[in-house]
Amino acid sequence: MAQYQAPLRDMQFVLHEVLNVEATLKKMPAHAEVTRDLLDQVLEEGGKFCAEVLFPLNAVGDREGCTLDTTTHEVKTPTGFKAAYTQFVEAGWPALSCDPTYGGQGLPHVAQSAFQEMMNSANQAWTMYPGLTHGAYQALLAHGTEAQKTTVLPKLIEGTWTGTMCLTEPHCGTDLGLLRSRAEPQADGTYKITGGKIFISSGEHDMAENIVHLVLARLPDAPPGTKGISLFLVPKYMYGADGMLGARNPITCGALEHKMGIHGNSTCQMNLDGAVGTIVGQPNKGLNAMFVMMNGARLGVGMQSLGLMATAYQSSAAYAKERIQSRSLSGPKAKDKPADPIIVHPDVRRMLLTQRAYLEGSRAFAYWIALQADIAHYSDDEDERKDAEDMLTLLTPVIKAFITDAGFECTNLAMQVYGGHGYISENGIEQLARDARINMIYEGTNTIQSLDLLGRKVLGDGGAKLKKFGREVEAFVSEHQQEPGMAEFAAGLEDIGGKLTDISGWVGMQGMKNPEEIGAAAVDYLRLAGHMVYAYFWARMAQVALPKAKDDAFYNAKVQTAKFYYARLLPESEMLVKRIKAGSKSLLSLEAEAF
Amino acid sequence: MAQYQAPLRDMQFVLHEVLNVEATLKKMPAHAEVTRDLLDQVLEEGGKFCAEVLFPLNAVGDREGCTLDTTTHEVKTPTGFKAAYTQFVEAGWPALSCDPTYGGQGLPHVAQSAFQEMMNSANQAWTMYPGLTHGAYQALLAHGTEAQKTTVLPKLIEGTWTGTMCLTEPHCGTDLGLLRSRAEPQADGTYKITGGKIFISSGEHDMAENIVHLVLARLPDAPPGTKGISLFLVPKYMYGADGMLGARNPITCGALEHKMGIHGNSTCQMNLDGAVGTIVGQPNKGLNAMFVMMNGARLGVGMQSLGLMATAYQSSAAYAKERIQSRSLSGPKAKDKPADPIIVHPDVRRMLLTQRAYLEGSRAFAYWIALQADIAHYSDDEDERKDAEDMLTLLTPVIKAFITDAGFECTNLAMQVYGGHGYISENGIEQLARDARINMIYEGTNTIQSLDLLGRKVLGDGGAKLKKFGREVEAFVSEHQQEPGMAEFAAGLEDIGGKLTDISGWVGMQGMKNPEEIGAAAVDYLRLAGHMVYAYFWARMAQVALPKAKDDAFYNAKVQTAKFYYARLLPESEMLVKRIKAGSKSLLSLEAEAF
Repeated sequence: MAQYQAPLRDMQFVLHEVLNVEATLKKMPAHAEVTRDLLDQVLEEGGKFCAEVLFPLNAVGDREGCTLDTTTHEVKTPTGFKAAYTQFVEAGWPALSCDPTYGGQGLPHVAQSAFQEMMNSANQAWTMYPGLTHGAYQALLAHGTEAQKTTVLPKLIEGTWTGTMCLTEPHCGTDLGLLRSRAEPQADGTYKITGGKIFISSGEHDMAENIVHLVLARLPDAPPGTKGISLFLVPKYMYGADGMLGARNPITCGALEHKMGIHGNSTCQMNLDGAVGTIVGQPNKGLNAMFVMMNGARLGVGMQSLGLMATAYQSSAAYAKERIQSRSLSGPKAKDKPADPIIVHPDVRRMLLTQRAYLEGSRAFAYWIALQADIAHYSDDEDERKDAEDMLTLLTPVIKAFITDAGFECTNLAMQVYGGHGYISENGIEQLARDARINMIYEGTNTIQSLDLLGRKVLGDGGAKLKKFGREVEAFVSEHQQEPGMAEFAAGLEDIGGKLTDISGWVGMQGMKNPEEIGAAAVDYLRLAGHMVYAYFWARMAQVALPKAKDDAFYNAKVQTAKFYYARLLPESEMLVKRIKAGSKSLLSLEAEAF
Repeated sequence: MAQYQAPLRDMQFVLHEVLNVEATLKKMPAHAEVTRDLLDQVLEEGGKFCAEVLFPLNAVGDREGCTLDTTTHEVKTPTGFKAAYTQFVEAGWPALSCDPTYGGQGLPHVAQSAFQEMMNSANQAWTMYPGLTHGAYQALLAHGTEAQKTTVLPKLIEGTWTGTMCLTEPHCGTDLGLLRSRAEPQADGTYKITGGKIFISSGEHDMAENIVHLVLARLPDAPPGTKGISLFLVPKYMYGADGMLGARNPITCGALEHKMGIHGNSTCQMNLDGAVGTIVGQPNKGLNAMFVMMNGARLGVGMQSLGLMATAYQSSAAYAKERIQSRSLSGPKAKDKPADPIIVHPDVRRMLLTQRAYLEGSRAFAYWIALQADIAHYSDDEDERKDAEDMLTLLTPVIKAFITDAGFECTNLAMQVYGGHGYISENGIEQLARDARINMIYEGTNTIQSLDLLGRKVLGDGGAKLKKFGREVEAFVSEHQQEPGMAEFAAGLEDIGGKLTDISGWVGMQGMKNPEEIGAAAVDYLRLAGHMVYAYFWARMAQVALPKAKDDAFYNAKVQTAKFYYARLLPESEMLVKRIKAGSKSLLSLEAEAF
């Protein structure tokens, strides 16, 4: 059976020993009071809620799914989801990292991220309800009117209302320029919005009093394409300035999708039939405002797969130690038993270590990114803010795509460790793979992420942001390469760094001659960049662990996993370079009709 | 929506132009009459049945699954499954490649394999019912008593009875030495068998009059481990020598498993409560007899994933040509439309070409293997039979593991081409990935296949069989490397051949010092060997296509796909060599308790 306990020791290792977040936060006026103890307390309490309340509902949600009453258009979530949400709200969890001006607790993003990881480990489908709410909170905080903020933000922060993002239409997902939903201005300054949206996660449910939808639509005089899209706040129930609920707004769920996974989350087709909304941000600038939510969502999707990897790893490691089957190739290990636990077999180790290397590497990377978000928002040093913002901008697509690819690989490796038992639904492992699969698709497919990274984030500024990250890595190498045991990591980092620099230059040159080269290289390029990032964080973890590894199993495991990563996963980089250099010719020489 | 038409042109290309099967079959007395026309006719008729009858039931089976009546222990298959089976039986399809002595049509394995591919493309879950029957037929033909053969084989060949293999028990799958089911000899020469089996595919259903189970169990005096296992034929209904059905035998379905995929196939927990059986083969030699069925099943599992790749590719290629979204990076291509079809994007091409390279490479490889089976059974030249048998022995694990890994990758690539729509059940794409996933697990996990390849098939005879395959490849290279356009394929083949030879020697040496090195290398080794095989078949296909490629889109597509395979997929080989050379140390240096 799948199992989950909050991996507190490992989370603390990253937060306190690798990233030393307390010291960084202390420099920010807003977070000067955030101590290591406070963070640990939050994680411990949060971890209990996730393991004890959310995790047992994960299988329930998968089995039951959501149901739509086609008469009332109301959606019922799986048994227990609503009660868990009430508990979540009563404990004040939605407010964790929100702005105190509107009732938030003002804790750092890095605390929120760690909590998010645990929620997703326990129950991705459930976590999407508060997850999208937090995204709506961020978009309104950045672009909402005073009236929107004053009334809506406190509701989202206390969790009595939830939020959604309504972008996709049947004929457009990636290409929002094609969208057709219309917004008609009304005399009172509001808009009446009409159209059909699909794939709206948490679009309708029974967990909150009200739902605010952030809807993309076109004004009557809007230019075509992405430059003519505006963003609107469309509530399920109209509300007064005091937040009292009024009439039902005609934005309703027409159908629920049946999906491969995340059954516990309601994926809705939403019909807007002259639904009343207010504009968010400037007319025709809706995509800018939505991108605040989208960028948050992309980081959030990475956290979803990070969370799933933790459950997959814990479950399959436990199973591998308990399931006995065949003898070790070098002779019996558990002589008192009729066979050895399967963890003796090298290939089972490979499957567990691969999970562990991606899981723990992702955790270090993701918490570091969350810390960059804190610095970008709260540092009182402008240069620091700029640098952190650059790292966030550069690496958001890597968080989204690399972690979600790893998440699918690792949940499948966990299933493989379970053998036939992994394929049986009751054991809860195959659900992890089904849930993980959507993360490679939504909030911009992983191809879109790779084009964003290579085209916009790297080549868009002549590699400036990438060089900034490179300098951080170089500084780390020159500071630590002489320390005992660090030479192999320094050498590996130099190698991958050189490869990434060379190929960035090469692709840039090719791309100037032919833009298709960017598209041909992008996915492999993102993986190469991802390996640079993971090699860096594994080197940092190894550097912290090495001096204590001899006498302490925890630190020794870090060092061994780092070595495994360098020896067995990082060599993918050579293949990626070869693939990229094969260029667009290898993809485009066949005419479309020949497929 | 998923779509499927039998890819007759491509199948004919492999059979007639690449493998020239007619010429090979002509030399066998049993198949001298099998012409190209006859094969084409079989494929055409078979293809119609698969596309028109089986394919529409694929989604039905997934949605409905099977249901167990817990009172009668009878299982109901999804709507339409039984009617399709009746049609299948009435058309004589089960008899296709079976022995004419018992009512078979005596067509070659290669025809059966091509038909199998199409059935699996259309409906893997349904195809498992006749698939396991064919396996039982093979095991009984090889090891059954005269009485078993005379009565049971005609029933299996006409399809009125079906078969199963009952190996797995809750505590043992891979390690059959642990199995506990007991067989008590009776005075009349029969046995009463008691025990519990799990994961029994097609174990109970409503499609046939009777089911014969091939059951592994232990005799009272049997030695422990795998040397004390016997094989029994245990019918659902007892029968007379004339095949007339008698009493219900106490082998019943206790429960159905809920699984990630293949919902249309009944995966049964079978309870044997003194069920009467007759022994197949010698006492305590049951695994030998079962391995006939197992080897057939392993080839069959490869065909399952080959089939799924065909549907995934066809569906996603069609979608990519039809779905419009965004503009080509090098400027609009479909100027009359608001966006370009997504097939213009290089990364969509990458996803389609990867599918195509693995699909068509697998087809050539799998049909060639089927032809080896024909040669091994029917050639009148003893050396030829031996050589073919060696190739079959060597490459069965590659068929099973490499094709099923590719099948999962490719069905997921197809889903990625569909974007969010691929994740929605109604579109039929995500089912392909869920169905494909089991193929990496059952009939020996892909790790077990890799240990079989490296430990038994390669190192077990000092590389003799591998060298035999190598000589075939070398002969091809020296015959064709001077032909126009062949230089790049010859060079690539030489490179991968050299790598495989070197690493085989290296692993052999390491393995003598430490057997764990075999286990540590095996999975990557099988992939490396697989790439050698695919590089060979892509070179053969390119060699046939090159002279005609200039004027014919079909042949040009072959050449371009071959180039894609060499440029973008084959480079994995370098990574694999590096991983293998990392050795067991990178996997085993962490103690089991640290996981």
